[in-house]
Amino acid sequence: MRFAKWHGAGNDFLLFLPEDGPELEKNLPRWAPRLCHRQMGIGADGVLLLVPEGQATVRLLYFNRDGSRAAFCANGSRCAAAFAFRRLGLAAMVLHTDFAPIPAEVGQNRVTLQLPAPQPVVGWLELPVGQKTLRGFFLQVGVPHLVVPVSWQDFWSCPLEEAPALRAHPLLGPEGANVHFAQVVGRELALRSFERGVEAETLACGSGAVAAACVALAEGWLSPPVAVRTASGRVLEVEPLARDPWGPLRLSGPAEPVAEGEVAPELLETEEQS
Amino acid sequence: MRFAKWHGAGNDFLLFLPEDGPELEKNLPRWAPRLCHRQMGIGADGVLLLVPEGQATVRLLYFNRDGSRAAFCANGSRCAAAFAFRRLGLAAMVLHTDFAPIPAEVGQNRVTLQLPAPQPVVGWLELPVGQKTLRGFFLQVGVPHLVVPVSWQDFWSCPLEEAPALRAHPLLGPEGANVHFAQVVGRELALRSFERGVEAETLACGSGAVAAACVALAEGWLSPPVAVRTASGRVLEVEPLARDPWGPLRLSGPAEPVAEGEVAPELLETEEQS
Repeated sequence: MRFAKWHGAGNDFLLFLPEDGPELEKNLPRWAPRLCHRQMGIGADGVLLLVPEGQATVRLLYFNRDGSRAAFCANGSRCAAAFAFRRLGLAAMVLHTDFAPIPAEVGQNRVTLQLPAPQPVVGWLELPVGQKTLRGFFLQVGVPHLVVPVSWQDFWSCPLEEAPALRAHPLLGPEGANVHFAQVVGRELALRSFERGVEAETLACGSGAVAAACVALAEGWLSPPVAVRTASGRVLEVEPLARDPWGPLRLSGPAEPVAEGEVAPELLETEEQS
Repeated sequence: MRFAKWHGAGNDFLLFLPEDGPELEKNLPRWAPRLCHRQMGIGADGVLLLVPEGQATVRLLYFNRDGSRAAFCANGSRCAAAFAFRRLGLAAMVLHTDFAPIPAEVGQNRVTLQLPAPQPVVGWLELPVGQKTLRGFFLQVGVPHLVVPVSWQDFWSCPLEEAPALRAHPLLGPEGANVHFAQVVGRELALRSFERGVEAETLACGSGAVAAACVALAEGWLSPPVAVRTASGRVLEVEPLARDPWGPLRLSGPAEPVAEGEVAPELLETEEQS
């Protein structure tokens, strides 16, 4: 089975078209854990299947590493658009995700998505964690995000000790949220993300970058466009389409190819060994 | 540039022949960190270049993830042998590593290496770590290993808290050692490995499995052959060639293909971005 691996600001994905292998839509829930395993598979944060539908329209199916379907992944969608440009010749397209139809444009090594307004805006919460109480802004950008402003000396190396407790905090409801620690550094918003599903820090989270940038704009920490520096070192740019930071917006950033090739048949065929 | 990814009991490697790309021996020290990066590259514990030399002889160059050269990697050598069988048609060969010439045989999904006697055998040490004193057996199997017997309730999920302090313990000299926590479970030796270079737990360490099996045999915990269960769930088998556990021995286990294909030129060309 043919595959491609791309990453968007350090968030990495395996990308497939229906022609790449047999019955991918049916098989990916079972194959995703094997494909995404970092050592015993190719390794990725998630898997995307692109189903071309009509002219310049691509239905996008996103699978988590555990094989479950997720509504949306912003960096995954950006990588899918860049891959669709390379394999299908589409420089502009609409990605039909489970979250919303997302217009995408592919430029020189950059992909821009137009995203619906973040909602519902829950706002600031005080979250007790152990002896401390942390303050975070809770909102939805396709999936739930908690943005926690911090002022750390060693922003990039500080252990994310409270992240697991925040991610599953009872005040965020049964689903919890992706947790993002945000700090203004110079003219940028520095961001570290702890993601649901991965249950660990990732190098970047696109919808989390949008969530954090909206909070930064609404609070007046920065003015648009907001450059969000991710843990990979790569920068994502968030720009509201109008003055209101709670309206639709554009997310831009790099999408970089890593490799393409053939998955070893043994990886998909082998029974789970104990 | 063409690549193959294989794993040996969860220890994963990118494998190359000289014909796969331009001046690989010269370029791999620079390319290895990009290739091995888990998110922004293909992802692997290390890189191997196989240089065929005469009949059934392959010179093996091993590069760590940081691009530095290492003398030997047992699971990497097993994957290299399986790859040499597939690409060069060699079912038996001698691998000329920087450690020693290693005879290798490739069977049905299994590769067996014949390894020189472990040496020098330093033996048991008492190692003060914080408030505790831990007991470990210090020996060389190509590289230095410390084998620490434990009796943990939750062997596979217990955090390896003392591993970083042990790995760099002053009593082990300036190089430190790979640290292995070993526990007899049923008729197997269960093993968790914290590796130098990776500076984290890996799913398996072949030479560490040999080191731990020798200690288990010398101490009479088990009799040969020793089945070593690794954190991946895969089993490595260690069998001394003679009665003496400190003589030459055989290491066998699975070597499994993951994928093959082309590295994106952008991955090797791009300048480091900040």
